[in-house]
Amino acid sequence: MPPPIHVSFAAGDTGTWRIESVSPVAGESLAPAACLSVHENAPNAAGNAWTLRGTTSNTRYTTRAEVAALAAVQQGLGRPAATRAALIPIRKTEAWWALAQDQRRAIIEEQSRHIAIGLEYLPPIARRLHHCRELGGPFDFLTWFEYAPEHADAFEDLVRRLRATEEWSYVDREIDIRLSR
Amino acid sequence: MPPPIHVSFAAGDTGTWRIESVSPVAGESLAPAACLSVHENAPNAAGNAWTLRGTTSNTRYTTRAEVAALAAVQQGLGRPAATRAALIPIRKTEAWWALAQDQRRAIIEEQSRHIAIGLEYLPPIARRLHHCRELGGPFDFLTWFEYAPEHADAFEDLVRRLRATEEWSYVDREIDIRLSR
Repeated sequence: MPPPIHVSFAAGDTGTWRIESVSPVAGESLAPAACLSVHENAPNAAGNAWTLRGTTSNTRYTTRAEVAALAAVQQGLGRPAATRAALIPIRKTEAWWALAQDQRRAIIEEQSRHIAIGLEYLPPIARRLHHCRELGGPFDFLTWFEYAPEHADAFEDLVRRLRATEEWSYVDREIDIRLSR
Repeated sequence: MPPPIHVSFAAGDTGTWRIESVSPVAGESLAPAACLSVHENAPNAAGNAWTLRGTTSNTRYTTRAEVAALAAVQQGLGRPAATRAALIPIRKTEAWWALAQDQRRAIIEEQSRHIAIGLEYLPPIARRLHHCRELGGPFDFLTWFEYAPEHADAFEDLVRRLRATEEWSYVDREIDIRLSR
């Protein structure tokens, strides 16, 4: 298990990814920008529009059986065919964070099937979760998705199903940023 | 539930707390220093010897029933009689962080009784846990304890019992810093 990777998502005039849209789902949006660059372990990286920072981490809810099921099928970031991406920053409510660990796990999986739903879309939809609640920024999580154009409909289906869950009733800010390269 | 508190433990020539001892338990020690100051949400605070930074966070393993049992008896930091303190930075192994959530929970509580043991020493031994694995420093956790001099023997008993657990076999760096004011 490698140490956490610090990732900066830097929006501005330059970057590998072209920003196709910035859509607020809940709460305040972010400024539009032309491009996004993704920097790993480069703490000073910043865009001239905005920069969001997070870190990978250990699993927080996933059981050993679920980790094994995911690992058996998932693929990494950077596949050449994966020319579509989404960056979805979310913040959860104070009520969410006041719940105990077993209560949050029950909502995430036993009620909302978050892990099981994500598994249905592997390997086409690659995903990396970044935590930022302890870094002091405006969001709690930054999730980055990559997929090929032929899986765009599957990705829409995935986000629609997750947003309909009990877990999502605890999301009070969410922005859906779509990208291509 | 308040947002995470960023805490800087700054060691140097000045500070509210006098450092009585800096003892390595596992791995490399820290430099000795005269005093420690504790700063909340002051990101630029630093000591002229060393500074350790962490943040409070949501519960990671504690169930609703355990949260209720702890809340019923625990007391906050800053009690006037609590003139003894300990700062215990620890780092856990890569093998620990590679475990899934349910495996870490089983080792922490079902095998090691970490939460139950801590509960036995409440309210005399007040405790605040700070996370720092995602902040990039040399430790994963900084735990701060405060107690009155008459509970010093109980505190020694608490740390002795925790260090004898299965959980502690995953600790590869630990320093025990004792303080008074």
